[in-house]
Amino acid sequence: MKVVALAGGVGGAKLADGLAQVLPTEDLTIIVNTGDDFEHFGLSICPDLDTVCYTLAGLANPETGWGQASESWVAIEAAKALGAPGWFNLGDRDLGTHLERTRRLRGGDALSAITADFCRAWGIGPQVLPMSDAPVRTIVQTRDGDELAFQNYFVELRCEPEVRGFRFEGIEAARPAPGAVDALIAADLVVICPSNPWVSVAPILAIDGLRAAVADKPVLAVSPIIGGQAVKGPAAKMFRELGIAPSALAVAQHYGDLLAGFVLDTADAGQAEAVQGLGIMPLATATLMQDTAGRARLAAEVLEFGGYLLTNA
Amino acid sequence: MKVVALAGGVGGAKLADGLAQVLPTEDLTIIVNTGDDFEHFGLSICPDLDTVCYTLAGLANPETGWGQASESWVAIEAAKALGAPGWFNLGDRDLGTHLERTRRLRGGDALSAITADFCRAWGIGPQVLPMSDAPVRTIVQTRDGDELAFQNYFVELRCEPEVRGFRFEGIEAARPAPGAVDALIAADLVVICPSNPWVSVAPILAIDGLRAAVADKPVLAVSPIIGGQAVKGPAAKMFRELGIAPSALAVAQHYGDLLAGFVLDTADAGQAEAVQGLGIMPLATATLMQDTAGRARLAAEVLEFGGYLLTNA
Repeated sequence: MKVVALAGGVGGAKLADGLAQVLPTEDLTIIVNTGDDFEHFGLSICPDLDTVCYTLAGLANPETGWGQASESWVAIEAAKALGAPGWFNLGDRDLGTHLERTRRLRGGDALSAITADFCRAWGIGPQVLPMSDAPVRTIVQTRDGDELAFQNYFVELRCEPEVRGFRFEGIEAARPAPGAVDALIAADLVVICPSNPWVSVAPILAIDGLRAAVADKPVLAVSPIIGGQAVKGPAAKMFRELGIAPSALAVAQHYGDLLAGFVLDTADAGQAEAVQGLGIMPLATATLMQDTAGRARLAAEVLEFGGYLLTNA
Repeated sequence: MKVVALAGGVGGAKLADGLAQVLPTEDLTIIVNTGDDFEHFGLSICPDLDTVCYTLAGLANPETGWGQASESWVAIEAAKALGAPGWFNLGDRDLGTHLERTRRLRGGDALSAITADFCRAWGIGPQVLPMSDAPVRTIVQTRDGDELAFQNYFVELRCEPEVRGFRFEGIEAARPAPGAVDALIAADLVVICPSNPWVSVAPILAIDGLRAAVADKPVLAVSPIIGGQAVKGPAAKMFRELGIAPSALAVAQHYGDLLAGFVLDTADAGQAEAVQGLGIMPLATATLMQDTAGRARLAAEVLEFGGYLLTNA
């Protein structure tokens, strides 16, 4: 079964890693959100892309969810001693990624080509694609009328400002990264990973040509909300602030017609019937990925469910 | 005695450090070449400015002459594993400087203001000024007709290409950094440190307004050439390739009318008479600065000689 996964940061990276464990390398493409990319200290930083790649490469820090394991902090500490802002943590090893990516972007290389080379160097098998080679920047619109760059909202302000909406700067000009539409055309199944629907998955689906290519396929989403809470990050808080009670069902309603199937946690099994009422096939299972084996287990269940959807479509 | 020192990299930094040891803080201003500044990995790097500051702060690596002591190399090694060029060494601690300088330059701050803040953070007393806040880029013109950016010539190609001349890109638009002309007006003496005349001192003197302000004062230079050899770097090789036999005398001739006095090594004492024949007062002494005390010793001799020149002008 050929699969395209849509992923944001930590949760998406974990399921992508599970899929990479259970699928033949050539059958998996992961399209990653780049709406949270930003420039810091003159460097081009792609947090979700790095989280996905570090996770697939086995380099990720299992405690933080971002950055690399066994990091050192010499450069950022030296910069902070000179007055640099410390809100965005930049490990020395991680800096190596940003340095070389920035060098190549400045030299005119496309982010997708750079990512492919980095994946080769890191020994990553599946194809990992940024959603677009063009810069797209997620802007968080707050109740106070501010427009915040995503990382300032997410990291600097710890998601504290109340959100009113989102805007994806540059989205009109952005085209799918080379290979993304081809992978979708070739795919049997699209898996929307348990990533934030508003700021991780929405930018991907907002790229001209990507949503249509996704909608052409059987799509299955895994809920990032368990028991009304986000496993990680501000997804539940965002639902609330947008006037929607956060729940697995609310995620299914959010994706709506796009979905053929929806995986929700056993804790939310009571919502399965309501999901079915939306015309979406539900699967209730343990969706928390506690370790590497847990990722593979959930991925295998997701694929089995996908196979069921395909034969019963 | 109020002194302005003109400095390039290692040799200039050492004498500047000696002057800082023997002069009251408020009586010393160091104007530093920025013609070898460049952008690498998207970062703004100022090698001479950093060498001078690291040396004055006691942070410099005494073995290499560049970078900081007790460095680690995690970031650049991670970048090299992704295919990054390794010809320019970037230590993690050193990277902290480049990150914060780049962040502030992008934010619109002037290099001179950034340098002043860095000096405060590093506990550096004397005023250290870049020659200009405007970018000036030394271009090395080769016999083969190539035009090489300075760091590519100097570090990547290890000064191997034969030089035919030099060009300072941006020099027409560059103005002296704020405070540089004021410091020169207030100065009793200008000391040209034992830096490369062609690529360290020439860019400083080529800034509109700086050469005239320097020429208005008693100027004394310390020879970077001892026994026909450069203590460090390509100065002697450059003299040869430009058709001039490298010697202390050749350095004095190069600066010519600008100089009131010239300090050459005892090894070259035989050239003192010829220097005097140019109308320049010579002083032969031990000019090699082997350690911190040696820098202070030479600085004290230079200042004593300067005092002699002032009272006998």
